[in-house]
Amino acid sequence: MPTSRLEAFSDGVFAIAATLLILNVSVSSSSHLSSQLLQIWPSYVAYAVSFVTIGVIWANHHTVMSQISHVNRTFLVINTLFLTVVAFIPFPTHLLSEYILEPESARAAAVAYGITLTLTAVMFNILWRYAASGRRLLRADANRRTVDGISRSYLPGPFLYAAATAVALVNPYVSAGIYAAIALFYVVESSFFGDRQGPS
Amino acid sequence: MPTSRLEAFSDGVFAIAATLLILNVSVSSSSHLSSQLLQIWPSYVAYAVSFVTIGVIWANHHTVMSQISHVNRTFLVINTLFLTVVAFIPFPTHLLSEYILEPESARAAAVAYGITLTLTAVMFNILWRYAASGRRLLRADANRRTVDGISRSYLPGPFLYAAATAVALVNPYVSAGIYAAIALFYVVESSFFGDRQGPS
Amino acid sequence: MPTSRLEAFSDGVFAIAATLLILNVSVSSSSHLSSQLLQIWPSYVAYAVSFVTIGVIWANHHTVMSQISHVNRTFLVINTLFLTVVAFIPFPTHLLSEYILEPESARAAAVAYGITLTLTAVMFNILWRYAASGRRLLRADANRRTVDGISRSYLPGPFLYAAATAVALVNPYVSAGIYAAIALFYVVESSFFGDRQGPS
Amino acid sequence: MPTSRLEAFSDGVFAIAATLLILNVSVSSSSHLSSQLLQIWPSYVAYAVSFVTIGVIWANHHTVMSQISHVNRTFLVINTLFLTVVAFIPFPTHLLSEYILEPESARAAAVAYGITLTLTAVMFNILWRYAASGRRLLRADANRRTVDGISRSYLPGPFLYAAATAVALVNPYVSAGIYAAIALFYVVESSFFGDRQGPS
Repeated sequence: MPTSRLEAFSDGVFAIAATLLILNVSVSSSSHLSSQLLQIWPSYVAYAVSFVTIGVIWANHHTVMSQISHVNRTFLVINTLFLTVVAFIPFPTHLLSEYILEPESARAAAVAYGITLTLTAVMFNILWRYAASGRRLLRADANRRTVDGISRSYLPGPFLYAAATAVALVNPYVSAGIYAAIALFYVVESSFFGDRQGPS
Repeated sequence: MPTSRLEAFSDGVFAIAATLLILNVSVSSSSHLSSQLLQIWPSYVAYAVSFVTIGVIWANHHTVMSQISHVNRTFLVINTLFLTVVAFIPFPTHLLSEYILEPESARAAAVAYGITLTLTAVMFNILWRYAASGRRLLRADANRRTVDGISRSYLPGPFLYAAATAVALVNPYVSAGIYAAIALFYVVESSFFGDRQGPS
Repeated sequence: MPTSRLEAFSDGVFAIAATLLILNVSVSSSSHLSSQLLQIWPSYVAYAVSFVTIGVIWANHHTVMSQISHVNRTFLVINTLFLTVVAFIPFPTHLLSEYILEPESARAAAVAYGITLTLTAVMFNILWRYAASGRRLLRADANRRTVDGISRSYLPGPFLYAAATAVALVNPYVSAGIYAAIALFYVVESSFFGDRQGPS
Repeated sequence: MPTSRLEAFSDGVFAIAATLLILNVSVSSSSHLSSQLLQIWPSYVAYAVSFVTIGVIWANHHTVMSQISHVNRTFLVINTLFLTVVAFIPFPTHLLSEYILEPESARAAAVAYGITLTLTAVMFNILWRYAASGRRLLRADANRRTVDGISRSYLPGPFLYAAATAVALVNPYVSAGIYAAIALFYVVESSFFGDRQGPS
């Protein structure tokens, strides 16, 4: 299979998962609409954080694909499992939107969100390492330094999200702040280093 | 990253956001279906106005991309933030559909719609100006006059929508009329000048 | 604008509108699930008829695009208005699914479906005739006989659907049968003439 | 019609149908959110099984298209009917998610899921056999051994799913296990034979 059709399918899932997030933003009734629209601020934040996070995943997926010359069945299956986790993100986003302000439910919502993002980061590392290990699927001209740089830059993801998930067990608000901070970090970092030629 | 994959992802978000708008058109029960189908006319208008608006945004995005030779990480992030706002449009469209005929809620709905479209126009200008400033990402053969024409034609958008949002605070019906008029203007204008070679 | 990006955006809307149709198939509760699954047969029929209808529209849209060398702003706007109507199809499909078996509401549902498909057929003819009139946007090598054949084959659509809509005012069940028969006709006809080289 | 646009439309439907599956995962209220999130485990399994199943269908569809040089109207219609069944998968997935733990409804849900997947496998065989019969639509360089291998590998699907559907009439839990096992088989098998050059 050429990489182009795998990219088309993956891009479709990324775009749809991100756009479906808006279905989580809703008001329950029309009474005092203006105050309700202010009260549901967590759903705006959760929407933006998840949308940017999926956007980052999409950009990273492109970085991986740009180093790959061909795919085999195992890669196809890993990619499908990876997309299964990515397309799951709208559900915990809904939980965070709805329940972060309810003391009894906030913890479960923040843990669910953290587990999903941890799994996404784990699957992404498996995807990349399967392709890069022994240069199994890499392009003949893939630069060793670039490949090692990608491997290094994706490594912290699972640990970072696992740590935030552990924090959620103690304090869901702090962990929600970490999820937002990670997305914000990417936005800010790119604003400063956008001109540099980097792996993505 | 080549521009083609960024266009594919963006086109996906535009197409999904536009098509999801239909989920906002609904009837509450089957009693007197025919009269209900007439009473929900605002949701038809809101659907059509938002669909055409997203169609215009899509066409303008193409115009921008046609002048660009490559993208960097900052552009990628700006584009993601821009898409975050575009994919948000179904929510305020839902508010307008549902609440424009309820005196107590109409204002909040019209303001929410206006803020979303103002942000969309602002993000679009940032996207274009980042690419065009100092010809940072432009094609080597991008015509100076065309580039300046694009810059000029996108400049009024934020002010126009910000003004309509301010009007919504006083009279939501007038501002809803302005949102519809802007979409209608594009349709009519294109019907007359379609043969002319223009920036879009 | 090259035709390829317009096709990508249009294909996205066709695919999403068709796939969203499944959201109209639902059961209200779990009591007697097996009998409920039989009782909602109209929603299966409505789903299949609308899905095939959108598939036919997609194939016809391709036929049009295959004769076109370039697009201008007016064509872009007509295409957007055309897609606005196509993406509306899930709503009247929902009405037919839900209300065709309720005597009081069946007529309104069948009329709404008919109006939507009539508008789709009208917009499609406008789209094609705008491109073909005076060979405005046609490829230099577009065959006159093929072009005339396309024009002839699309002409009956609006009248056929308008007639079925008029029938719905008298008897919604007959008109629902006509909608299904039109979709079925395409399936059967293609099974017999698939090998023939035709305009689509 | 070139095969590329048919692939684009089909890929769109596959990606959307898979991503819409997440809408079936939901909690009914916020009381005891953490225990609720554990109780809805069938919806996670159903989500993952259907997502992977659609992923496998997508990969198989690619295998078919890679052997085909051109398409005709009959193939187009068969493909549309095939997609109609694929895009239906979210509905029986919803039934399984919601009702597999309710003794009275589990059977109907498992049968509905089985019928849908049986129809998908039947339509897929029709699609392939129509193209391959007498090498009707095959590429001139399509290898006879590869073509026969594809025909053999797709043959068991309909019988396998029909058998699982029959099992559902007796014991829905066993049949649900079979659906999951089929998806799991593909994942495991590919992990061991990924490096082998095979038909997909």
